[in-house]
Amino acid sequence: MIGIDLGFVTTGFSIVEKREGKIFLLDCGLLSMSSSQSISYRIGCFYDFFDQKLIEGQIQVISLETPFLGKNVQSFLKLGYLRGLLYLLANKHNLDILEFSPREVKLSITGFGGAEKDQIARVLMRLFPGFQMPKKLDLTDAMAVSLCGLWNSSFKK
Amino acid sequence: MIGIDLGFVTTGFSIVEKREGKIFLLDCGLLSMSSSQSISYRIGCFYDFFDQKLIEGQIQVISLETPFLGKNVQSFLKLGYLRGLLYLLANKHNLDILEFSPREVKLSITGFGGAEKDQIARVLMRLFPGFQMPKKLDLTDAMAVSLCGLWNSSFKK
Repeated sequence: MIGIDLGFVTTGFSIVEKREGKIFLLDCGLLSMSSSQSISYRIGCFYDFFDQKLIEGQIQVISLETPFLGKNVQSFLKLGYLRGLLYLLANKHNLDILEFSPREVKLSITGFGGAEKDQIARVLMRLFPGFQMPKKLDLTDAMAVSLCGLWNSSFKK
Repeated sequence: MIGIDLGFVTTGFSIVEKREGKIFLLDCGLLSMSSSQSISYRIGCFYDFFDQKLIEGQIQVISLETPFLGKNVQSFLKLGYLRGLLYLLANKHNLDILEFSPREVKLSITGFGGAEKDQIARVLMRLFPGFQMPKKLDLTDAMAVSLCGLWNSSFKK
């Protein structure tokens, strides 16, 4: 299960797995892309990066948070570009894409749909004791959506 | 020059070229995708279809109309998916993407930025006498944006 928190400058990802009732954080990190690069260059980087990650991690499911339209319509549209690439990768590698609202993610991690980011971070640190609180919240957001995906797909099985 | 009028059900495309001051319509048509198919399947179809078209047509520039946010936010986001795929193809085949507002397209074709669709269709039929008015406007929209791209890139040269 990979959780991805999309962004045209910084994208967070988190790969988690459940084995014998325990959850393991196998890989996590950020893909940073310079805003001075062209859109098509960044699109190419993003595609190649996740193509590789999905193969290496033998990923079967991608978990995403539903984007909401904020003040910046262009940013919202560009999130669509990146989602389109993930759907293309899902088609190429025969993966499922799960999607959760921000509320569902928070509820799943903390038991409270209106939880703040630092509350989510505390739960993550408890789950993965060696994990240091990152400066960028894109990483904790990705971890949260990966865990939400993992728990929800376990339920379904 | 390929002009593409994006849609998750019907996408129009038009390939035009200028030789010795004359404009030729080399290829045009529609890609129709059933709404009963999954998003990732349709994404895969769209990508493969245009990957092939761009190679066969030896395309160097893609011309698109700027999407505007209408009432349906999800449709707008999904247009983003398709645009992301075109940017990926532009990266892969080293193409340029030009973008025009609906007003710029209308102005470029008819000389009037507020022109109606049937006025555009009449100009297209005059330009390409053998061309029959199609039932689907996705095709005339694609032709209009391809011509707009062609004229504007000729100016720049």
